[in-house]
Amino acid sequence: MPEENTVYIGKKPTMNYVLAVVSQLNTGCDNVCIKARGRAISRAVDVAEIVRRRFVQNLSYQDVKIATETLPGQDGGSANVSSIEIYMKR
Amino acid sequence: MPEENTVYIGKKPTMNYVLAVVSQLNTGCDNVCIKARGRAISRAVDVAEIVRRRFVQNLSYQDVKIATETLPGQDGGSANVSSIEIYMKR
Repeated sequence: MPEENTVYIGKKPTMNYVLAVVSQLNTGCDNVCIKARGRAISRAVDVAEIVRRRFVQNLSYQDVKIATETLPGQDGGSANVSSIEIYMKR
Repeated sequence: MPEENTVYIGKKPTMNYVLAVVSQLNTGCDNVCIKARGRAISRAVDVAEIVRRRFVQNLSYQDVKIATETLPGQDGGSANVSSIEIYMKR
């Protein structure tokens, strides 16, 4: 999936990301990927469910991938953080 | 999957749940389901990844399901909350 079909979930209010996903689908694109790391994972699941239940008809989950990413830490070490990728298709 | 193979993730420290999942798999059972709601979803993903990467060999994701549950609210109304079910198999 091309990078422009991906919405990264951060610390902004949930509805900001819902709007981003809905906008993405309204450009005529039939699929979207929602990605998040760490505590934003819960918000990513909220975004996916709100879009699917309230805004876009016939949207279904294609795949949900869970993984661990290794990020460089502040002290020169590294930190492991969980990540999720939610693939949705109309 | 029978109810006893399911580990529900709440607000306790992550490693408590990691231990519960590892114990479950050490009873000779080859599969386990990790369930969580709301903010505990991030922790559920952490638990799954820690078990898979550090404690149990050859454990893989069978399915990851995302849904919305409707809970009765305090004021007599209802609240929607996202949920995740992570199915893992050895």
